[in-house]
Amino acid sequence: MQQYPSQLLEKAVNEFSKLPGIGRKTALRLVLFLLRQDPDMVFGFGNTLIELRRDIKYCQVCHTISDTDVCSICADENREQGVICVVENIKEVMAIENTRQYRGYYHVLGGVISPMDGVGPNHLQIDSLVKRVESGAIKEVILALSTTMEGDTTNFYIYRKLAHTGVNISTIARGVSIGDEIEYTDEVTLGRSIANRVSFQDTFKI
Amino acid sequence: MQQYPSQLLEKAVNEFSKLPGIGRKTALRLVLFLLRQDPDMVFGFGNTLIELRRDIKYCQVCHTISDTDVCSICADENREQGVICVVENIKEVMAIENTRQYRGYYHVLGGVISPMDGVGPNHLQIDSLVKRVESGAIKEVILALSTTMEGDTTNFYIYRKLAHTGVNISTIARGVSIGDEIEYTDEVTLGRSIANRVSFQDTFKI
Repeated sequence: MQQYPSQLLEKAVNEFSKLPGIGRKTALRLVLFLLRQDPDMVFGFGNTLIELRRDIKYCQVCHTISDTDVCSICADENREQGVICVVENIKEVMAIENTRQYRGYYHVLGGVISPMDGVGPNHLQIDSLVKRVESGAIKEVILALSTTMEGDTTNFYIYRKLAHTGVNISTIARGVSIGDEIEYTDEVTLGRSIANRVSFQDTFKI
Repeated sequence: MQQYPSQLLEKAVNEFSKLPGIGRKTALRLVLFLLRQDPDMVFGFGNTLIELRRDIKYCQVCHTISDTDVCSICADENREQGVICVVENIKEVMAIENTRQYRGYYHVLGGVISPMDGVGPNHLQIDSLVKRVESGAIKEVILALSTTMEGDTTNFYIYRKLAHTGVNISTIARGVSIGDEIEYTDEVTLGRSIANRVSFQDTFKI
């Protein structure tokens, strides 16, 4: 056990090492960095964290992180009506927004079903998704969850929950990444990309 | 430029990405982790940082981080009197203490002379080292700085500043690390370890 010459220092190192991917050595490096900074910068850092946790809101419609009751995407009436993309987390919303290829709305589950981690369907925003679809204004639900066992489980769970509504349910295409070499692509991905092949003319808009 | 759906979120990501070695993606991951934690944990984190920067003290004798005016090492009268090990930072104090091979005292410079980074001798605790040595109670000063250009510059600067006191000045041994293979050791280290060879009987206490 490392001996710290100061309890304040040790406490700060303890806090930083609670963060994922940050061990005690890195934590000490970060704390010593903060000690070299302007006090105002460090006070700002601390207060930002406190404010974040205290004041953060989640959109009442899609449950993404938002400063307002309804997020800017859900409030935007110029987006494609009736299309909802179901994602795990806000990170996927940001990644999909960055592609500029999608103009519909989102629904953030807040995770995927994972019995190992004690996450069941009731911990996720699945009921509110079903309600949104049952309202009748939705024509397509796009599932964009990870291709892990948990992601697939969640996909099937949502599929069964939505089946009675008759809404179109699609899932994002899986295939060989742009820039990847066919030779090195794993068999499952390559198999799926052949099975789901698309019209050449459609893809290149010829 | 990544679009954040919340200014609070963006502000927190900005703060985290000021830390060394943490980019915007990692910062977002850390912020989302904090949002999933208990509010009290996050408030504790924020307040710990604020307290750290506000209440931290530096030992009046050796300038290491301390909760008291004089650190626990400097206050310990059972350590070897009259021996001071000069180090760059508190991390080296902790590393040397962990070896349990050193029982003297320390002097923390707070960095090394680095004109490129705008660090001159006056930014470091060199004058107070000279005063400690001039007090007459010191018999040996051990220089334990990095073997970088900046470390060597600082070594020579301190050497010249202390020369008039007649104190013994030593530097930690450089040589092949325990467990390292001779074949792969760099030439400078290997050369130094041959030049500074030590008595076999002394090393193994035969």
